[in-house]
Amino acid sequence: MDNQELLRKFEPIFYPKSIAVVGISQNVFKVGSIWLKAIIDAGFKGHIYPVHPNGGEVHGLKVYTSIKDIPEIVDYVIVSIPRQAVPQLLDDCAGRVRAIHFFTAGFGEAGDETGRRLEKELVQKARQGGFNIIGPNCIGVYSPEARVPYGPAGRIGEVGSVGFISQSGGIGEKLSELGVARNIKYSKGISFGNGIDLDSPDYMEYMGADPKISVIGAYLEGTRNGHRLFSTMKSVASLKPLIVWKAGRTKVGAAAAASHTGSLASSAAIWSAAMSQAGVIEVQDVEELTDTMLIFQNLGQREIKGNGIAVVGGLADGGGGISVSASDSCAELGLSIPELSYATRQKLTGVLGIVGSILRNPVDLSQSGSNRAKIKEATGYVLQDPAVDLVILQIDAGILLKYLPWELVQSVFNVFIELSTEQRKPIVIVSPPGASETQRLEMERQLCQASIPIFPTMRRAAKAIMNLSRYSGSRGCS
Amino acid sequence: MDNQELLRKFEPIFYPKSIAVVGISQNVFKVGSIWLKAIIDAGFKGHIYPVHPNGGEVHGLKVYTSIKDIPEIVDYVIVSIPRQAVPQLLDDCAGRVRAIHFFTAGFGEAGDETGRRLEKELVQKARQGGFNIIGPNCIGVYSPEARVPYGPAGRIGEVGSVGFISQSGGIGEKLSELGVARNIKYSKGISFGNGIDLDSPDYMEYMGADPKISVIGAYLEGTRNGHRLFSTMKSVASLKPLIVWKAGRTKVGAAAAASHTGSLASSAAIWSAAMSQAGVIEVQDVEELTDTMLIFQNLGQREIKGNGIAVVGGLADGGGGISVSASDSCAELGLSIPELSYATRQKLTGVLGIVGSILRNPVDLSQSGSNRAKIKEATGYVLQDPAVDLVILQIDAGILLKYLPWELVQSVFNVFIELSTEQRKPIVIVSPPGASETQRLEMERQLCQASIPIFPTMRRAAKAIMNLSRYSGSRGCS
Repeated sequence: MDNQELLRKFEPIFYPKSIAVVGISQNVFKVGSIWLKAIIDAGFKGHIYPVHPNGGEVHGLKVYTSIKDIPEIVDYVIVSIPRQAVPQLLDDCAGRVRAIHFFTAGFGEAGDETGRRLEKELVQKARQGGFNIIGPNCIGVYSPEARVPYGPAGRIGEVGSVGFISQSGGIGEKLSELGVARNIKYSKGISFGNGIDLDSPDYMEYMGADPKISVIGAYLEGTRNGHRLFSTMKSVASLKPLIVWKAGRTKVGAAAAASHTGSLASSAAIWSAAMSQAGVIEVQDVEELTDTMLIFQNLGQREIKGNGIAVVGGLADGGGGISVSASDSCAELGLSIPELSYATRQKLTGVLGIVGSILRNPVDLSQSGSNRAKIKEATGYVLQDPAVDLVILQIDAGILLKYLPWELVQSVFNVFIELSTEQRKPIVIVSPPGASETQRLEMERQLCQASIPIFPTMRRAAKAIMNLSRYSGSRGCS
Repeated sequence: MDNQELLRKFEPIFYPKSIAVVGISQNVFKVGSIWLKAIIDAGFKGHIYPVHPNGGEVHGLKVYTSIKDIPEIVDYVIVSIPRQAVPQLLDDCAGRVRAIHFFTAGFGEAGDETGRRLEKELVQKARQGGFNIIGPNCIGVYSPEARVPYGPAGRIGEVGSVGFISQSGGIGEKLSELGVARNIKYSKGISFGNGIDLDSPDYMEYMGADPKISVIGAYLEGTRNGHRLFSTMKSVASLKPLIVWKAGRTKVGAAAAASHTGSLASSAAIWSAAMSQAGVIEVQDVEELTDTMLIFQNLGQREIKGNGIAVVGGLADGGGGISVSASDSCAELGLSIPELSYATRQKLTGVLGIVGSILRNPVDLSQSGSNRAKIKEATGYVLQDPAVDLVILQIDAGILLKYLPWELVQSVFNVFIELSTEQRKPIVIVSPPGASETQRLEMERQLCQASIPIFPTMRRAAKAIMNLSRYSGSRGCS
């Protein structure tokens, strides 16, 4: 399938012109009803068709008694009905819909004979009826541009260039939430559950072909066709960064995966080796997945020439200990903390003086006396050093605010927003939680909007940078 | 020195009856002046003596022109004057003070001849003058019970049973801040910088002997006397949990440590082996240090019979993916996720039903429909299972709040406060950050006050539990 065909195939799913919701009821606490309301509230512009045998009206919309009564071919159907009612529904859908998403669970993952039998029947009926199945046992599509919110909870964030693929609905929900919280802007996302028809390789191929997506993050538990998955990963990873978190790595994790999405997880070592060969960026948990999506989103367009990191800390007081431990975290994760040139150190001494300062690398700015001009000048010299490819700044709001009023703290972090726009070397910020959370979150919001990636710990920043730097390196940029 | 002598020796330092501040000025932005104000504001009950050659009055207190004019022997002197003025000050102090703390830097760590010479002179004069030196190049004492705040920033939290020892003033500041933020209640803390007189083993011995301290956390960069440090660690670790974060593990980290506190850091492997032999709990960063202090503070008094963890998630929706990845994190860090007994699974099926649920371990509560009674009953059965020694609960405020109003979320987490008090097996909570931070922080505050330890990620929870469980195991409890 060429790119144009792929984009066309997935258009009814990610840019539906009509959505039917099957399984709504007058009980507003039923998931189908909540979902319907969420789609309306998100501002979906296409046709919306609630379906229930009793008919009537809900939220000002006519309720259709059957999918067969809807006057057009429906692009995307969301189904939340008991599993035993599913085969009849599929018969009704034949030739009348383009894609059906099943929130309904209790198929292959349930582990009983009925579940397995039903799953096979579903695939057959989809082939015959000429539509695709998303799921079952999943939350389906998230498409901010098409105003399709993520699931019944209805979260919808700003439109961006990140795509996510999640075998788990809950992880997908966390990814969409962290998108809003951490300024990761999605183009689209999918939770695909058991993946009995469209499976992870299908979504990867599509997102690989989609020009609106610049980086893909995936949560996988297992696959039905390892050979196809790995060949797809390889071709997609050659086009754009593909970040994969493979859960079910351990024996207990694999057992949980079998109960969850009916996945057969195989050995962690085999997966890791195959992903590495495919050029995939492998991550270990939801934190590293979102950290890595964030750094690619914000810094993927900057040229990272090498592996040399400068760490700058001590904006208010006591940068020494943080410098020592930052060096450890970076070095342990494989980053290089090069010595600054003699010229840079001379310039720093000129700005900051000697006593109590650490003017090697890491650089301790505590002698700046929180003077905005000195901080900007000193950090500028560090950025200019030829051995430095990226600067990590430790901005500890909890400590800064013990010494400085909020206005001054704001003017200090504005220095870094200026530096980030005035020159091309990337700046990354470590902003540890503490006792001044309201202000810290506001500070992070402002820095986020300036496209500076922010991480809560030095170790997480270092891991994300390492993932970015390895990828740039493998592309011949370093 | 027996325990009583040790406690007496350190009494002027941690429970001073009088404090002199040398290096104040009329300039309220000078660190000495800020510090003086912080001590007054913290409500220190003893005598306070500002010292400055010009005399006069400040904050309603008489300013003494010299330490020699103060009408009593001063317990604790805080010094923030240029390094060249220090020898004269020490002559003035001979026989008139019990302990001097130098915020002043520029000694051994500066790397110049003057710094090294001055450092030797300081030790000599302390011996001759009959007083102890804290530092130089540090923030000194934190003693909530004596109302001595931590440093000029003046942070002071509730009184508790945790002690910290930090070679870095900045790390000490972060520890005191995270104490307030995460409900780690300190009995006392110390930042000791270059440690030229009283060094890390002295503070460890003291905190080991102090009956008010039940767990000690330390940040070290290096030591002047490895033999003494390790024999002290061994004897202190036999009395109470001693958690040590040794920074400067890598080559760049060690170089930063030399600039910071003049420490000679030796190889990470040597330190790790020696700490392990001494029975020390080794941690790797400020997060793991505070996580581990927190878990010992809150659960150190509960009996941990073994290594069996049950993970409970999915309170609102989609616990499946979290269950899989939680299993991985626990198993990778060495914890055991035992199968629940047949009886427990039968009881869970009775409460939660089958379809869409994961009733093994991890347990997915999403089928509880966020029903308070069902959540309590199901979690109670899990706690009662004979293979379960500790329960990790995933409470995701950001996702819960998308489905439930705040009052209902509160009543859900109150279930766990009840369960924690009604039975003896420990409960640990993982509360990931997200898009509903204000409510999450309020929720954490309430759970904290019920002495339930809270961690932001599954991996960090698992590490802290592993540290606790290993310690209990080595004490013959598991």
